[in-house]
Amino acid sequence: MKKIGVFENVSIDGCFAGPNGEIDWFKSIEKDEDFEAYTHGQSKGGSTLLFGRTTYEMMKSYWPTPQAKKADPAMAKVMNESPKVVISKTLKSVDDWNNVRVLDDINAVRALKEESDITILGSGSIVRQLANLGLIDEYQLVVVPLLLGAGKALFKDVKMTGLKATEARRFGNGVVVVRYAAAD
Amino acid sequence: MKKIGVFENVSIDGCFAGPNGEIDWFKSIEKDEDFEAYTHGQSKGGSTLLFGRTTYEMMKSYWPTPQAKKADPAMAKVMNESPKVVISKTLKSVDDWNNVRVLDDINAVRALKEESDITILGSGSIVRQLANLGLIDEYQLVVVPLLLGAGKALFKDVKMTGLKATEARRFGNGVVVVRYAAAD
Repeated sequence: MKKIGVFENVSIDGCFAGPNGEIDWFKSIEKDEDFEAYTHGQSKGGSTLLFGRTTYEMMKSYWPTPQAKKADPAMAKVMNESPKVVISKTLKSVDDWNNVRVLDDINAVRALKEESDITILGSGSIVRQLANLGLIDEYQLVVVPLLLGAGKALFKDVKMTGLKATEARRFGNGVVVVRYAAAD
Repeated sequence: MKKIGVFENVSIDGCFAGPNGEIDWFKSIEKDEDFEAYTHGQSKGGSTLLFGRTTYEMMKSYWPTPQAKKADPAMAKVMNESPKVVISKTLKSVDDWNNVRVLDDINAVRALKEESDITILGSGSIVRQLANLGLIDEYQLVVVPLLLGAGKALFKDVKMTGLKATEARRFGNGVVVVRYAAAD
């Protein structure tokens, strides 16, 4: 069986976005060589990338651009070349980014998981749905050292026991990355 | 200047209690020698303990009992002998536990902080108020590896930047302890 992993920036208070979807606070992460080496090491490719529509639209508006390719060539290559799947009932055309297909039913992820490892970035609503279906194997949380006070909670209405931290790493910029494995 | 530190059990989704104040999920923490040595090392005494009324009532119903003294003699000694302060506008009598006084105004904590180091346990509403007053120096979060799905968020409506993780430690029982320092 292949694995589904989640990679998320979250605030200390557990939000993946502000009340209106704001993610500008990601930029507050201070430059740190160890942290950058770590996050790059986590995105070596080989997985199918899975998105909800909102995250997909954001990713697609950035990664194919010359600025993205200049700012982070290795990550841009992974993002642009990896197979990508968007879960959406409304999105029709995805021919404006390389190697993308649309699935209109979250349950189709079961079959997708038979085919390949899957990594979910952002896409809070997809994370919650798949968590509640018991399909996620690992949660990797990049805890940005701030409190939003209000926002979109990553695990809203997700109730789960049997999780176990398998890694916790602190970086010089005050960020902590925690990796949780779900119960089998 | 003395320091105010917070020591809290929280779920991965950032709750310090369930929707109705439930803390029975603390008991899901698996026995682990390293974890117990660590938490005991954090409670050596010397601080004034600060509580809200709800947490105070819970603490007082447990720590002076023979069961508590038998189950955890060192912690019971710290809890029973340390100076304790309850912030409450309604509580009158505190003569049923050793070394307790009541303050009816959260702003009185400023003067208290001139006198001695303060540790807050539980008491989510007090934590939020003091955080918003900029009076808390350190947050030590014991992240219990489960998702409550709903509950009392420790940092509800607290907005804060400039925090920095100064420690992150994972234990064999899947618990992670993260310590955050507030900006000066």
